[in-house]
Amino acid sequence: MDLTKSALLTDLYQLNMLQAYLEQGETAEAVFEFFVRRLPARRGFLIAAGLEQALDFLQDFRFSREELDWLEASGRFSEAFLRKLEALRFTGDVEAMPEGQAFFANEPILRVTAPLAEAQLVESRLINILHYQTLVASKAARMRLAAPGKSLVDFGFRRAHGAEAGLMAARASYIAGFAGTATVLAGALFGIPLYGTMAHSFIETFDDEAAAFEAFARARPDGLILLIDTYDAEAAARKVVSLAPKLKAAGINVAGVRLDSGDLVALSRRVRRILDDGGLAGTIIFASGGLDEDDLHAFARQGAPIDGYGLGTSLTTSSDVPALDCVYKLEEYAGLARLKASPGKATWPGRKQVWRSFDADGRMVGDVLSLESDAQSGKPLLVPAMRAGRRLKPSPTLDEIRARAREDLERLPEPLRRLESGAAYPVEVAEPLRRLAKEVERRLGLAEKPA
Amino acid sequence: MDLTKSALLTDLYQLNMLQAYLEQGETAEAVFEFFVRRLPARRGFLIAAGLEQALDFLQDFRFSREELDWLEASGRFSEAFLRKLEALRFTGDVEAMPEGQAFFANEPILRVTAPLAEAQLVESRLINILHYQTLVASKAARMRLAAPGKSLVDFGFRRAHGAEAGLMAARASYIAGFAGTATVLAGALFGIPLYGTMAHSFIETFDDEAAAFEAFARARPDGLILLIDTYDAEAAARKVVSLAPKLKAAGINVAGVRLDSGDLVALSRRVRRILDDGGLAGTIIFASGGLDEDDLHAFARQGAPIDGYGLGTSLTTSSDVPALDCVYKLEEYAGLARLKASPGKATWPGRKQVWRSFDADGRMVGDVLSLESDAQSGKPLLVPAMRAGRRLKPSPTLDEIRARAREDLERLPEPLRRLESGAAYPVEVAEPLRRLAKEVERRLGLAEKPA
Repeated sequence: MDLTKSALLTDLYQLNMLQAYLEQGETAEAVFEFFVRRLPARRGFLIAAGLEQALDFLQDFRFSREELDWLEASGRFSEAFLRKLEALRFTGDVEAMPEGQAFFANEPILRVTAPLAEAQLVESRLINILHYQTLVASKAARMRLAAPGKSLVDFGFRRAHGAEAGLMAARASYIAGFAGTATVLAGALFGIPLYGTMAHSFIETFDDEAAAFEAFARARPDGLILLIDTYDAEAAARKVVSLAPKLKAAGINVAGVRLDSGDLVALSRRVRRILDDGGLAGTIIFASGGLDEDDLHAFARQGAPIDGYGLGTSLTTSSDVPALDCVYKLEEYAGLARLKASPGKATWPGRKQVWRSFDADGRMVGDVLSLESDAQSGKPLLVPAMRAGRRLKPSPTLDEIRARAREDLERLPEPLRRLESGAAYPVEVAEPLRRLAKEVERRLGLAEKPA
Repeated sequence: MDLTKSALLTDLYQLNMLQAYLEQGETAEAVFEFFVRRLPARRGFLIAAGLEQALDFLQDFRFSREELDWLEASGRFSEAFLRKLEALRFTGDVEAMPEGQAFFANEPILRVTAPLAEAQLVESRLINILHYQTLVASKAARMRLAAPGKSLVDFGFRRAHGAEAGLMAARASYIAGFAGTATVLAGALFGIPLYGTMAHSFIETFDDEAAAFEAFARARPDGLILLIDTYDAEAAARKVVSLAPKLKAAGINVAGVRLDSGDLVALSRRVRRILDDGGLAGTIIFASGGLDEDDLHAFARQGAPIDGYGLGTSLTTSSDVPALDCVYKLEEYAGLARLKASPGKATWPGRKQVWRSFDADGRMVGDVLSLESDAQSGKPLLVPAMRAGRRLKPSPTLDEIRARAREDLERLPEPLRRLESGAAYPVEVAEPLRRLAKEVERRLGLAEKPA
C-alpha cells in the first residue's frame, strides 16, 4: 500500500462529521477556501506550492477495499455509511493560484466547491499537502533572494520530517529557484537536477586524505567536487593543488571543493588564495553545514568567495518558522455565506477572489480581496483548476512553475525582498466583502468583526 | 510504488561514493553510529524512537527493477555498478537502544556494522527515519511531563510535514505517553487509539448552533464532545446545558465540550461553572488551539479545569526545535578506529556502549560512554537488534515501548523533568575512549581533541 495515497490520511472527526451529514441529508454545495491567516514575523510574502499534488489527491480520491474493511472492523461506522464511502469520489470544482505565485495573509490560494461531504473529507490531507510545500517554497525564496548569483542545492533530505517531506522539499525549493537537490528519488520523480559530492566518511576510510581525493576523482571524474574539511581545510586545499596536475594528466578537472564547517568567510578566502596560487582559479568553492538565509546574506555582504551552497535542515524543516498558520475554512453552504467568529480566528465569508495591481515597471503595488462576483481592477489570481473532479488542463511543467516564481520574486516591492522586510504588502478588503461579513454576523446574532 | 520504501530515498553522493568503493574493492567492515551531537537549548533529555521503522527499512532494502532502470537511464553509473546494486541487500548487524529509552548528547542510539557499501548507502534514510520520531517523542515527553494526569491527543496531522510525518508523529507521541491520535491511518497501521470531535465547519453549516449540537449528538452519540467556541463559548455552554436533558432522554450523554480559542484559563473556569450549575459536572472540558508544553504547564499551575488537550502543530513539527543535530558517523573501518576532526564537529571514534547507573530509588544518576569492549558498571543501553540483516526477535509492541518510556520519564532526575531543566545530565567519557581518540589523532597527524 502506498501510504501517501490512503484515504485514511484524515482526522477521525472528518468521518464522524461525514456520517452525521450523510444521515441528515446535509449534501448541499459547500465552499471551502485554504489561506494563511497571518504571515509569520520573518516572512514578508509566501510562495504558493503543492497544487499539483493537491489536484492529484482530489482526482484520485477513493477508499480502497482494505481501508473500508478496516473502517468496518473498527465498529465505529454504520453499514449504510460505509457503502456511501465506497462510492465516494471527489466531484467538485477547484479554483487556485498557480504554483510559484507570491501571496499574502487572508488571500485564498485554493477554493473547493463541492457537495459538503466531499469538500469536508479532503480537508486534513489537502492542508497537509499545501502547507508544507508552501512553507518550504517560501523559505527557499528567502534563500534565493539572500544569495544573488549563487547556485543553491537542497541537501536536506536526512533531517526532513519523513520521506514525503524530503521529496516535496526538493520540489518546492526547485520551484523557488534552487539549482537542484541531492535527493535521488526527487530527481527520478520530478526531473529535478541532481547534485552530490562526497562525505567525510569517504575521506576517513582512507588513512591518507590525498589518496582519498585521488580515488574519488578517478571513480567520479565528472563535475568533481572534493570535500576538504575532514581534518584541516587549508592543508587539504594544498593537497588538492598538488594533486591537480596528476589528475589533469588523466583528463580529470577539479570542478570544486566543498567546505562544511568552520568560519566559512575566512576559510573560503584562504582556500580561494591557495587554489588561485596553485593554478586552480577555475575551481569553485561550495559551502554547506547548517546554513540558513541569514548566513547567505552575511556571506554575500562580506564578499566571501563562495560560489554555491548546500542548504539542509534550515530549508527542509523551515527551521525558524516550521509551520504556517493556515486553514481550510467553510465560506459558504447551501447558498449562504458562513463565517467563524472565534476570538483571533474570525474569517471573511463567501467565495473570494484576489486582484493584484502592478506599477509601470511591473512591480506589485497592492492586492484587493473581494467577493468573486465583485470584479476589481488588476489581475485576478485565482483561476479554474478542476471541474467536476477532473483537471481542466495539463499541469504546467516544473520549469514553467519555476519561471513564474522567478518572475514574482522580481516583481515584489523592494522592501519585501529583504530578509527583514519591515513593511507589509497592502491587501485591501473590498467594501462589499466587509458588508457581507456584517450581514452574516447579524444573521448569526453576533457583534464581532473579523480581525 | 510506495515512495516510503524506495531505495532512491538517498543522497546522490551515497551512490557516487558507493561506485568508488566498489570499483576500488573497499569492501571491508565499517562501523557507523547514529547519535545527537548536542542537546538543543530547551531539551534536557531525548527519547529514542523510530527503531522499528529503521529495522524494517534495513531488512527490506533493495533496488527495484524500476529504480535500477532509472539509474541506468540517468547515465551516471557503470553497468558493473548497477549489477552490484541489483544484488545489494543489507547483511549487517545492528545494536540499538530500545525505543522509548531516554538518552543524551553523544550517546549512540544505533550502531550499524556492515560491509562499507551497505553501511554507507543506508545513511540518508536511516537518519531521516530515526531523527523525526526521536524529535517528536522528545517533544511529546515534555508535554506529557507538563500536564500530569491530563489526557493528551495528537491533533497535528494537517500541519505535519507530509504524510509520513503525520503518521510517525502519531506513533512517536503515543510512545511518549499520549492517549491517542486523530489520524485515522495511524490507528489502522499501529493500533493507536483514535480520538475525534467535530469542526467549526459542522456548526457553521447549521444556522442554529443548538441544532448543530443536537444533530451531531444523534449521529455520533458515543464519547460525544461538542465544540463550543465557534461564536461565543459561554453562550454555547448554556445551549449544551439546555440540550442535555433532551439528549439524556434519548440515552445520549454529553461526555465533554471542546474549547479551541480564547483565554483558555478564564474561559474553562466560566464554562466549568456553567456546566456544573447546569448539572453536567461529569462533562469534561477538552482544549486545543495552537497549544504547546509551556501552555500546558501554565494551565496546570493556574489550576485551569481542563481535563484533556489536543496538541497539533507544536507537536508534529516540534515547533520550538524542528530538528536535532544528529549524525550517522563512521567510527571504525577495516579494523581501525576513525574520527572526524572538523571544527565543532569532532567525534568519538570506535564501537561504543552507554552504561547507565541508578540510585536506590531507581532514579538515573549518570551515564558512562565507553568503548564497547571496556565494560563499566551500570546497565548497558545498546542491545543487539539485528544480525546478518535479520531481526533478532519479534519487535516489542507499541504498548511495551510506551511502558518503557513511562518508566524512563519517572526515572529522570527531577531537574530534567522540568521544561527549563537548567541542569545537564552527567555523561562521562571513559578514559580508554579518550586515549583511543588521541591515538587516532596521532595516527592522522592531528592535534585537536573532540569537543
